Amino acid sequence: MDNIEQIIAAVAPADQSVGPLAQAHLDNLTKPTGALGRLEEVARRLCEMKGDTHLSQPQAAVTVFAADHGVAAAGVSLYPREVTAQMVFNFLAGGAGINVLARQAQAQVHVVDVGVDYEFEAVPGLIAAKVMRGTRNFAVEPAMTLAEARQAVLVGARVAAQLMDQGMDLLIPGDMGIGNTAACAAITSVLCGRAPAEVTGRGTGLDDKGLARKIQVLEAALALHHPDPADPLGVLAAVGGLEIAAICGYCLAAASRRTPVILDGFISTTGALVAAALAPAARDYFIVGHASQEIGHQAQCQFLGQRPLLDLDLRLGEGTGAALGLTLVRAAVAIYNEMATFESAGVTGDKVEG
Amino acid sequence: MDNIEQIIAAVAPADQSVGPLAQAHLDNLTKPTGALGRLEEVARRLCEMKGDTHLSQPQAAVTVFAADHGVAAAGVSLYPREVTAQMVFNFLAGGAGINVLARQAQAQVHVVDVGVDYEFEAVPGLIAAKVMRGTRNFAVEPAMTLAEARQAVLVGARVAAQLMDQGMDLLIPGDMGIGNTAACAAITSVLCGRAPAEVTGRGTGLDDKGLARKIQVLEAALALHHPDPADPLGVLAAVGGLEIAAICGYCLAAASRRTPVILDGFISTTGALVAAALAPAARDYFIVGHASQEIGHQAQCQFLGQRPLLDLDLRLGEGTGAALGLTLVRAAVAIYNEMATFESAGVTGDKVEG
Repeated sequence: MDNIEQIIAAVAPADQSVGPLAQAHLDNLTKPTGALGRLEEVARRLCEMKGDTHLSQPQAAVTVFAADHGVAAAGVSLYPREVTAQMVFNFLAGGAGINVLARQAQAQVHVVDVGVDYEFEAVPGLIAAKVMRGTRNFAVEPAMTLAEARQAVLVGARVAAQLMDQGMDLLIPGDMGIGNTAACAAITSVLCGRAPAEVTGRGTGLDDKGLARKIQVLEAALALHHPDPADPLGVLAAVGGLEIAAICGYCLAAASRRTPVILDGFISTTGALVAAALAPAARDYFIVGHASQEIGHQAQCQFLGQRPLLDLDLRLGEGTGAALGLTLVRAAVAIYNEMATFESAGVTGDKVEG
Repeated sequence: MDNIEQIIAAVAPADQSVGPLAQAHLDNLTKPTGALGRLEEVARRLCEMKGDTHLSQPQAAVTVFAADHGVAAAGVSLYPREVTAQMVFNFLAGGAGINVLARQAQAQVHVVDVGVDYEFEAVPGLIAAKVMRGTRNFAVEPAMTLAEARQAVLVGARVAAQLMDQGMDLLIPGDMGIGNTAACAAITSVLCGRAPAEVTGRGTGLDDKGLARKIQVLEAALALHHPDPADPLGVLAAVGGLEIAAICGYCLAAASRRTPVILDGFISTTGALVAAALAPAARDYFIVGHASQEIGHQAQCQFLGQRPLLDLDLRLGEGTGAALGLTLVRAAVAIYNEMATFESAGVTGDKVEG
């Protein structure tokens, strides 16, 4: 998979014909029809993605893509840039939020340096795939060249392909990058056709003044670059981020092999948004695990046609909301596989007249 | 614990002084302040319940209380009465929804016959504590005598006490009883001061005509019995159910020993509602795991001062939504115990000026 266009061409819609067969099985389990609500929806969708009425517990992997953002210099985040590299070490040591929640959800965690502004030397466990030491500041120049953006997309696609080759059949993209909500708001504004003010939030906790400055920076940047929504890779290059590009490639590669992807918030959903802009059928493989507190996430979910499973006021990123979503996906698979049917349990399934 | 009044007297408020200490620990973990949202709230509340800043993964048990309802004869449910007993066998065989979701959440499942209209003989695994073979039809006479209601409350309290004696430190009440949403709507109407139409829903799936009949039955029953909201046990006796009374006792006993209870929907929350009406401080030990689709559940949550963690459109009961909630509680405990601090991970916690 060394060609983005080939991956895009390989993304086929999920098999909708399997849905009714899966639902018929669910309707035969010892519960009122539809009584397990969205767990039934998840089980049905997984069947459609696989094109098969048989489900098994997924082998799941979280991949945290880390990169720095030139736009952080424009004062759009509360935390200093060096936190990105520090958090990479935290992920590798197993002490970050995503490590804890992935363990709970029985998922592996991998960490990819796709553009951190730090030379890691040979750090055990880190997947070294640095395209550059952070993007340029898109407040004054394009974040990346088109070649750099494409290279970062392919980093994500290759990591996903390797994980699937190793037997992983459910992928979760995570993110780490101080300043990345600004890039995501810019991309969402362009691809969803919304004004920056409609899709820009407080990130790690900006106050009103900080939020106003962030919106101003984004408005000026979009006026400067005029990114074209019909050219998603061009949008990534102009105002995107390296980890966002990698997540886009990761989502595309997963969708091209009919593999479900759980998303968890504003950053990973931005990567998925670019993937869906490039290959609309990729939407069929996305499960939004958690609603972001960033206001732009609603526009993204609408674009993707997805409703988040959870809303626990999380705003950490890293894939944490998706890891929690994975516990619900596992519950859905268990329900599908392990519940008794009316017949096997000797329970009267026929309703009396209502 | 052979006296309801003793149990009520033993219910003390959670220790609010521990909350800020727990939050200080949470604020020191490698994430922006408050970024794990409701997981932090759950961890903090668990500390307040225990009165201790140390948490460990709970030993959790689900107890499904099963009973029949005389009011089912009034045509308020879609399913025939024999389904209650059939489902008891399904619980014991491990094939029901709650069995599957409890396994996923690492919780035991116990089943209590507190009033099923079926003679089980000696069924292995079933806790036999039948007060009577179902309530009387409260459309024409009180569902129970006060003595029967008190006996059912004590069944729940004793089971909870036994489980806590065995080391269980998190309890989940589940329910099974064809017709029970009608009893719950009646109780909720009285205790929350709402008209029956405001708190009566479709149960396992009534159509408009069935719903109108159910509301009519409840209005007539409340006019017949005039239950007094200041006498919660009297309300239980007049229009309640045996499993609802048992859940009330189970919640009271848990709260009296500072043990968290996860609730999951209209039936279990009705039991908790009666418990809170008897001992207001019991509220401090309740976590609402899942929002019910029954409209009366909102009034209940308001009464209890609780916001549900999940809303996955479940309407099965049995404790299923609470079992899913338990996976989030486990995630909250893991976060509290396992995440690195800024200092231990060498991450810069000081924010730059916003």
